[in-house]
Amino acid sequence: MTDKPEALEVTVQFQPSGRQVSVPAGTRLSDAAEQAGVQLNLPCGGHGKCGKCRVSVLTGEISDLAGDERDHLTEAELAHGVRLACCARALGNCAIYVTPTARVIGDKTLSEDLVRSVELRPNVRQYHVEVLPPSLEDQRSDFRRLVDDLEPLSGPLHGTVSALRGLPTALRKDGHRVCATFVGNRLVDVDPASTPPRCLGAAVDIGTTTVVAYVMDLLTGEQLATAAAHNPQARHGADVISRIEHSTTHTDGLAELQREAADVVNEVIEIALGKFDGRHQHIYEMTVVGNTCMQHLFAGLDPHYLARSPFIPVTSDPIRMSPDDCGVKMHPRGRVCCLPVVAGFVGADTVGVILAADMTSRTDPVLAVDIGTNGEVALWSGEKLLVASCAAGPAFEGVQIQYGMRAAPGAIEGVSFVDGDLCISTIDDRPAVGICGSGIFDAMATLLESGMCDPMGRMLNGQVPEGMAANLSRRLDGEGPQRKVLLATEGNGAGAENIYITQRDVREIQLAKGAVRAAIEVLLKEAGLTADDLGEILLAGAFGNHINPASAVRIGMLPDVPLDRIRGVGNAAGAGAILALLSIDERGRATEIAHQATHLELSGRLDFQMTFADTMLFPGAS
Amino acid sequence: MTDKPEALEVTVQFQPSGRQVSVPAGTRLSDAAEQAGVQLNLPCGGHGKCGKCRVSVLTGEISDLAGDERDHLTEAELAHGVRLACCARALGNCAIYVTPTARVIGDKTLSEDLVRSVELRPNVRQYHVEVLPPSLEDQRSDFRRLVDDLEPLSGPLHGTVSALRGLPTALRKDGHRVCATFVGNRLVDVDPASTPPRCLGAAVDIGTTTVVAYVMDLLTGEQLATAAAHNPQARHGADVISRIEHSTTHTDGLAELQREAADVVNEVIEIALGKFDGRHQHIYEMTVVGNTCMQHLFAGLDPHYLARSPFIPVTSDPIRMSPDDCGVKMHPRGRVCCLPVVAGFVGADTVGVILAADMTSRTDPVLAVDIGTNGEVALWSGEKLLVASCAAGPAFEGVQIQYGMRAAPGAIEGVSFVDGDLCISTIDDRPAVGICGSGIFDAMATLLESGMCDPMGRMLNGQVPEGMAANLSRRLDGEGPQRKVLLATEGNGAGAENIYITQRDVREIQLAKGAVRAAIEVLLKEAGLTADDLGEILLAGAFGNHINPASAVRIGMLPDVPLDRIRGVGNAAGAGAILALLSIDERGRATEIAHQATHLELSGRLDFQMTFADTMLFPGAS
Repeated sequence: MTDKPEALEVTVQFQPSGRQVSVPAGTRLSDAAEQAGVQLNLPCGGHGKCGKCRVSVLTGEISDLAGDERDHLTEAELAHGVRLACCARALGNCAIYVTPTARVIGDKTLSEDLVRSVELRPNVRQYHVEVLPPSLEDQRSDFRRLVDDLEPLSGPLHGTVSALRGLPTALRKDGHRVCATFVGNRLVDVDPASTPPRCLGAAVDIGTTTVVAYVMDLLTGEQLATAAAHNPQARHGADVISRIEHSTTHTDGLAELQREAADVVNEVIEIALGKFDGRHQHIYEMTVVGNTCMQHLFAGLDPHYLARSPFIPVTSDPIRMSPDDCGVKMHPRGRVCCLPVVAGFVGADTVGVILAADMTSRTDPVLAVDIGTNGEVALWSGEKLLVASCAAGPAFEGVQIQYGMRAAPGAIEGVSFVDGDLCISTIDDRPAVGICGSGIFDAMATLLESGMCDPMGRMLNGQVPEGMAANLSRRLDGEGPQRKVLLATEGNGAGAENIYITQRDVREIQLAKGAVRAAIEVLLKEAGLTADDLGEILLAGAFGNHINPASAVRIGMLPDVPLDRIRGVGNAAGAGAILALLSIDERGRATEIAHQATHLELSGRLDFQMTFADTMLFPGAS
Repeated sequence: MTDKPEALEVTVQFQPSGRQVSVPAGTRLSDAAEQAGVQLNLPCGGHGKCGKCRVSVLTGEISDLAGDERDHLTEAELAHGVRLACCARALGNCAIYVTPTARVIGDKTLSEDLVRSVELRPNVRQYHVEVLPPSLEDQRSDFRRLVDDLEPLSGPLHGTVSALRGLPTALRKDGHRVCATFVGNRLVDVDPASTPPRCLGAAVDIGTTTVVAYVMDLLTGEQLATAAAHNPQARHGADVISRIEHSTTHTDGLAELQREAADVVNEVIEIALGKFDGRHQHIYEMTVVGNTCMQHLFAGLDPHYLARSPFIPVTSDPIRMSPDDCGVKMHPRGRVCCLPVVAGFVGADTVGVILAADMTSRTDPVLAVDIGTNGEVALWSGEKLLVASCAAGPAFEGVQIQYGMRAAPGAIEGVSFVDGDLCISTIDDRPAVGICGSGIFDAMATLLESGMCDPMGRMLNGQVPEGMAANLSRRLDGEGPQRKVLLATEGNGAGAENIYITQRDVREIQLAKGAVRAAIEVLLKEAGLTADDLGEILLAGAFGNHINPASAVRIGMLPDVPLDRIRGVGNAAGAGAILALLSIDERGRATEIAHQATHLELSGRLDFQMTFADTMLFPGAS
């Protein structure tokens, strides 16, 4: 016997990725995560200061609560086994669930291919002015001496009283040479010309699941940094309806959701600013896109009537706010502008897509499909703009798919049918831990192609048809509603899980793709067009760039057009927010688009229901 | 001997009125003041709660400090013998100085004769709307359903986010019948149509000495109430220069003066609201006039460069503020608008006079003279608008006059030369306690008329000329610089003081009236006019209505025009603020006036100095 026993090795498994690692007992969960290749959000560097690395202990023995944890966790969280990964230590084998806020989002969400080159005409302007010193012959006020020469260029200018309070001193500090910053026609800052402030703006896309910020240099139009984080409101439910419910059934529920929205916006901007040592107070303007519900929650507007027929927003106009109105960190005299929405379920994100894709400038018909947590479809006929929304997104985001996950290392992102078997690829070539959106499309297409699923959406029922390759037939498993197809057996170490696509998953995919396709068909019919008339189909949304167009056509979500007419356009909503930030002309066009758009409310339409019954089926196998 | 001695009677004298009263020892100073006919400002009813009834103990024995007093008085005030009249008790004979904040102002300051009948077009509008309920066929947002029918009348309307927050509930509370309140094009309130809020506005004139508020019904244009109070900034000095000095030489001096300005504005509005049980939150807009310095202090703008050549204001444009910007009590989404100024010493009060008198609409030349704590002169030539300021006011307000006082009961307000003697009249026919502005003009004119003072401003030097009535000659007193003329021997009880006008007073009057007249002459010359060309001379300012035009001409402050061309127009600056509150057209005209006006800076002009040397003298005795 020895005085000091060998350190006990324990196994820590992380969910939802399923990764696990063997570490000495007493290892911090954050260190275990690092070794397991699970990226945690540790803005404070793992010092128990920020409380972001929340995890839930599913099973196993963990160290007692540390003081820092008590400061960050609520009673309810403690009761549910929530801990901070940077404080809690694994004492025995355990299973740990990494909460959305604790996960790091990869840059795959952040593409904004559609930021067109536009004339830089931001609403924020900085002028370097050498002001004439006053005299008995020129007794103009400080403000007049500053702006009299600018107004012929800019139109009438006004002073905010707080900027005027600093004007006399700033004007005389540097020999009457100043840098004057205006938001719209309002003077918000006067600094000595020798130390001008940076002139930054933030474009923010508040998604139901993910919040993305782009910090832009408004003098050059350059994108300085971008960052993303999970929307912490997700703890009240993945979809907008459960958040609306939370806001109406809980005292201060709306205030809570508003604060969460503001907090995550502040967080993503802070992360982005950190990448180039930027400062909040140099952000003079923020443009915001999001679906109508997300914008309502961010602005603290009552979303109650969004969730019930006839689905009425409080306002569809642009919402202009001060930083104090919504609790965001930026220049105190800066302005927040939420882009206009079209309807209760066609939000500023869709307006952003239409703007970024410049759809209404085109002469040929074009269709945009934005698949996020909800699905929106916009059709420009060449003359008319029609939009509709449908419940589509969650399945494609992996939410209602048994082994679904977000696009992160180890996610199956591609599935193909090669040499009589399925061939999978994962993000970063890591061992497979789940399947993300693009993988779901491919897997479904491959099941159809291989005959493992029929056009009605029925998987093979264990009975392998004659002639099916052995490689394929060994993937079939289960009976009846439990039927499933094995996609991957990889994983990491002992206890690695098989990744399947199940019969239930196929039904979810049918519902989702059927709804999107039915919306497309109703819009085409309303415009008197057919799919052949479409010059292009644009796929927007976080994974619009990653979907294989052939798979989208194969499963019937998109009509059967030549594949070169289908184009992924990345986070086009975010691109719209950027354009509206960089150019007031583009911002004005966003309002025109929202006015111009005709919203088709599908929920009450018989033709939608009829079409949906058809589009739920898969196209006949080739 | 008795156990309980008779209550000792003590004499309490109040300054500056000089009134005194005999009361039992132990009487509260506020009760003594009431018996002496000295009106104190006791908003809290004399319960030690508001701290307004500050008095200074000049001499005598007073009770020890009560707890309530300690709560209200600063260390500095306690060191200077400041007490609350409602707490302190007279234990022996004493002399008490009533501070300006403690005095009550009579309604004589509040005339606003010039409020013209204008088309009621306030910036605040209330609409009673029956909004169509939403349906699947009409999915317009709540805000759109509210404003779509209004915009053809009003132009584009926007929602403030805080008003939008209450919109869905308000809209559905009363069967979609609402009262919507807009300030400018901003929705600020939505109430059920059955309980519409009052729609009030406040016009405020922030004078160096007196602050006046007019509370108006913006739906009818009716003046609901008015109130006035002394400007508490007076404790830092009676003139604007000493306040500017205070703001620059004391840490937080500007913040202190700003707060005092906001406090007194809140106070006068509260008094006015109290007269009809009105509420602060129903005041949606406030227009403010004041001289340039008062407006700077109210807006918290640095007045430093106003006080030094070349006398530059921070801004001459209208200053638009939120209630929070300046700390005033009104509807939280209401707006404050300070009217534009012309120059460092020609403020929005002068703009208000020119607007109220509608000078620039006239075809004949017209002159306006505004005598407050400073003097401003405006000349409309029929084509051009010229303005100038001069140091004139304090003497006429009684400040630099030995027995001078504000227009209050007991002030000598008129002096005439009847039957070979001076005949005086006092306000409210009370025993004379001092002399106010109109009395100073009359007294000076009478001294000249009677030969007791020569055109050079020399009083008779004790040597009574032959033929002078005995009544007059017995009024002469003193020698050399101590020469003086007895105006009144009245007073109240023992120790009543004689009221004199002194040689030094005459010199002060010469300087003041000479400056005003010189300004008039320079303006006339600049416009190529003479006094004969003037269709009218308007006398504005608190006592413009009370000056005898004949006296103003007799002492040479005004040119010798037929007396029916001279008209007192009361508080025309306040009338201008009212007009700007009732009509955005009039408000726009105020800005035009400020732009249009040519300011003549007299301080550097040789012709002003030359003219002043002449105009300091009195016209030759008739």
